[in-house]
Amino acid sequence: MTLIMYERIGFEGRRPSPFSWRIRYAFAHKGVPVEFRPTRFADVETIRALSGQDKVPIVVDGDRVIHDSWNIATHLETRFPDHPSLFGGSAGQALTRHINHWSSTTLGPAIRRVISADFIYCLAAEDRPYFRRSREAAFGCTLEAYCADRDRWLAELDVAIAPLEQTLSEQAYVAGANPGYADYLLFSVFQYARLGCPLELLRENTSVRRWRDSLVASFDQLGDRFPAWPASKEGPDGR
Amino acid sequence: MTLIMYERIGFEGRRPSPFSWRIRYAFAHKGVPVEFRPTRFADVETIRALSGQDKVPIVVDGDRVIHDSWNIATHLETRFPDHPSLFGGSAGQALTRHINHWSSTTLGPAIRRVISADFIYCLAAEDRPYFRRSREAAFGCTLEAYCADRDRWLAELDVAIAPLEQTLSEQAYVAGANPGYADYLLFSVFQYARLGCPLELLRENTSVRRWRDSLVASFDQLGDRFPAWPASKEGPDGR
Repeated sequence: MTLIMYERIGFEGRRPSPFSWRIRYAFAHKGVPVEFRPTRFADVETIRALSGQDKVPIVVDGDRVIHDSWNIATHLETRFPDHPSLFGGSAGQALTRHINHWSSTTLGPAIRRVISADFIYCLAAEDRPYFRRSREAAFGCTLEAYCADRDRWLAELDVAIAPLEQTLSEQAYVAGANPGYADYLLFSVFQYARLGCPLELLRENTSVRRWRDSLVASFDQLGDRFPAWPASKEGPDGR
Repeated sequence: MTLIMYERIGFEGRRPSPFSWRIRYAFAHKGVPVEFRPTRFADVETIRALSGQDKVPIVVDGDRVIHDSWNIATHLETRFPDHPSLFGGSAGQALTRHINHWSSTTLGPAIRRVISADFIYCLAAEDRPYFRRSREAAFGCTLEAYCADRDRWLAELDVAIAPLEQTLSEQAYVAGANPGYADYLLFSVFQYARLGCPLELLRENTSVRRWRDSLVASFDQLGDRFPAWPASKEGPDGR
């Protein structure tokens, strides 16, 4: 039975979620077929009925329903042990977990700070008021004010990604000679920026840029299968 | 033939170097005997003649001389493949390399910012003028000014270690159920703070504190085998 993944869909077919991208790559890496079901913020009741919580992605595998991207990745690893490994063993999995937390606490916020005011336009028009309201409440200011000092936030992003730049100047991927889930989860955050704002955040001739572009191209140009910015600013956005 | 490790010795037998601590733990993990040779900054010519550069630790293994802690760790892994693994495979080694860079670019500087003005007194009195001169040139101010706003730097340290705290709230060690080189290299930076300043930087009942204390106690209390602060402030310190 084919696995099913529910994922956020944005404006005119966009796939705006980094959590969805990392799992899309994990499926491709495992070579496991999956059927994608796009969901809107408005589909929250469907998601809640399925999984007991309201966030996507969720994966349905027979009578199991798994939510949270980390849980999905470890489920795929356990469920398909004879397919290419996402972690390279138990130490690799534990170390990847730490890199996942680094992404959540450091890399993700640094990128969000640069792109949030653009990113909203990658969401379906009817989902924008919710995004604006919830984020502005969390940030304590408008999205535009949050991102206004772009030069400062780009400089802070450079500081945040320094260890990644150094690693990738020495080895092709974070997981070594070949990519692993650590690569996909970090890549997904850069992919979220790449598709979620009109600005190229990564300078040419850096190791992170080379690595990102190689992951965009992998699995038959998987990273280019959905539209990017410019997104339309039409429609109600809650302002 | 027993391997030999040259390492920095500080004031009255102290071992002030985090790079030395991580390799001391790596040897203990591997269960490989090693003979330690303490060196002073003043022994720079000996080190240069041996290794072609002037930093310790260096390890002499027969006719091979290895410098840089990462190179030493990977040498031990390759040279003693039947002893407990430091990395848990090639993906584990690549992922640990990234964590090593995170330590160098983020964790290390955050801890240095808190402890440098105290740490100098853990060095042998005759090594302090060099330390003060070189660090103050790099920092652009006195050690005391660099560390003056301790509350601010402690708050920034909390931010820096957030991903580690989260990881260790879920698993016993960064490398999983058992410690690996990723643990030793990160631990060594906390050990440098623990022995290098009179202040306890880690709050009780945190996961990082529990993990650090467990590593201090491991290998028969290896982390407590050398004296800590208070170090004497006597002797010329270059002021």
